[in-house]
Amino acid sequence: MGLSGHLEGGQHSLDVRVYYEDTDFSGVVYHANYLKFCERGRSDMLRLAGVHHTELAQEGLGFVVTRMDCEFRRPARIDDVVTVVTRPARIKRASFVLFQQIFRGRSLLFEAQVTVAMVDAQGKPHRIPEALARRLAAAVDGKS
Amino acid sequence: MGLSGHLEGGQHSLDVRVYYEDTDFSGVVYHANYLKFCERGRSDMLRLAGVHHTELAQEGLGFVVTRMDCEFRRPARIDDVVTVVTRPARIKRASFVLFQQIFRGRSLLFEAQVTVAMVDAQGKPHRIPEALARRLAAAVDGKS
Amino acid sequence: MGLSGHLEGGQHSLDVRVYYEDTDFSGVVYHANYLKFCERGRSDMLRLAGVHHTELAQEGLGFVVTRMDCEFRRPARIDDVVTVVTRPARIKRASFVLFQQIFRGRSLLFEAQVTVAMVDAQGKPHRIPEALARRLAAAVDGKS
Amino acid sequence: MGLSGHLEGGQHSLDVRVYYEDTDFSGVVYHANYLKFCERGRSDMLRLAGVHHTELAQEGLGFVVTRMDCEFRRPARIDDVVTVVTRPARIKRASFVLFQQIFRGRSLLFEAQVTVAMVDAQGKPHRIPEALARRLAAAVDGKS
Repeated sequence: MGLSGHLEGGQHSLDVRVYYEDTDFSGVVYHANYLKFCERGRSDMLRLAGVHHTELAQEGLGFVVTRMDCEFRRPARIDDVVTVVTRPARIKRASFVLFQQIFRGRSLLFEAQVTVAMVDAQGKPHRIPEALARRLAAAVDGKS
Repeated sequence: MGLSGHLEGGQHSLDVRVYYEDTDFSGVVYHANYLKFCERGRSDMLRLAGVHHTELAQEGLGFVVTRMDCEFRRPARIDDVVTVVTRPARIKRASFVLFQQIFRGRSLLFEAQVTVAMVDAQGKPHRIPEALARRLAAAVDGKS
Repeated sequence: MGLSGHLEGGQHSLDVRVYYEDTDFSGVVYHANYLKFCERGRSDMLRLAGVHHTELAQEGLGFVVTRMDCEFRRPARIDDVVTVVTRPARIKRASFVLFQQIFRGRSLLFEAQVTVAMVDAQGKPHRIPEALARRLAAAVDGKS
Repeated sequence: MGLSGHLEGGQHSLDVRVYYEDTDFSGVVYHANYLKFCERGRSDMLRLAGVHHTELAQEGLGFVVTRMDCEFRRPARIDDVVTVVTRPARIKRASFVLFQQIFRGRSLLFEAQVTVAMVDAQGKPHRIPEALARRLAAAVDGKS
């Protein structure tokens, strides 16, 4: 698996190492940091689907998370390697929905349903450009 | 408002300043950081209700977030002062549910329903000790 | 002490609470987070001296840390309230130097010498505007 | 390069991707996050030298950063892949010194001299165990 993970069959996988910075004094990963791991997964899924933050930013567009329903099932610990699995589900006019899961081996640690919306430079909802929607759809269909 | 906010009428309020560390290159607060602000609100609500992480840790107990349903409505920006409002809702045998909202003035930026469970040193669910449940209930009833 | 601390006699003080997010699995504050606390102190020192990030950004200017020599002396722990003390030392044409210390009560936990440079939108060094230099100098002299 | 980078000729290299979480509203990587990248480099250097946090923790030992002199030379940006280069320099009785640099291609972005001390469970300085010192020395000599 390369630095950006791999995208195959409509599903993106990314291995992430747990470092000191990710843990808290309770001895396990701080809850909000699973959202960071998920964001890395989404970013790399988009990257492998040919969508780049910097290009979008040049057009004054960006993605924002508008909704995230999170279940924290089991804790990850220092030195663990966990896998972030990202499956884009529905693509709408100005947003899309993804399912994300974090595993250590076969053990499910975290899962979330995430809604991501496209916004313009003023933060207003913006239609997802045609070419980008096609690349996302190809990723959903497992054709990218 | 003191460093730990205030608890009144069953509701805790905490003012939080947005610093560089909280923002990302899109110009607004990074989405996972609203969860950090909420955790500060919960910690200080518990503190004012007389519940301390360090005391719990000495008994081998701790709280973990098991579920968090988040809506990201409007972005906060650098230099903003936002208010984290925390209302404990239901107290169960080994967990409790809270509603949390983040405002800038009267503008709602973020809201979440959060389930927090009590666990022992092995991470197993553990009954909330009687005295602690009473303090939480008093906070819910607005009597603390 | 208000949310932005206080500035008096050429020295800024800011109380900071240690939360879950600041600690790591070793049980104490994660080393890089003392730099975040220091940045909060510098931001609030500038704020009380009348210098705002958002105003600077509108002129295409900003401050960047170019050098930071850090000594980590004693650890801070969950629930601690620490005080970040910031003393601007030398103001130069396009940069200034500050001493920063973090205390818990009278116990010194961390200290750093920090060089902060003014840069333009391209990240090039830029002369500190006259009005801003005057406000900084007043803060150094303890007159703001 | 694997997830833990590689260790060769007395030098460890680790590729790190810059994500949203690493940047701030100024558009570049937040200064304290270079310290996180360096910590990942040190952790993985130790990992490849056969030293594991979890094993140390079982013996009640751990490493803490006691000094870090940092120069921030050029900013990293979203989507960048940067390389963290770690060279252990001197091994002493209860501490060791490393040089760390972060590059984007051949461009030096950040460098630091870091002192890391071994401490016991009470945070007191502790002699580096013989076996561990040998592994570190082998890494310094480029023989691991």
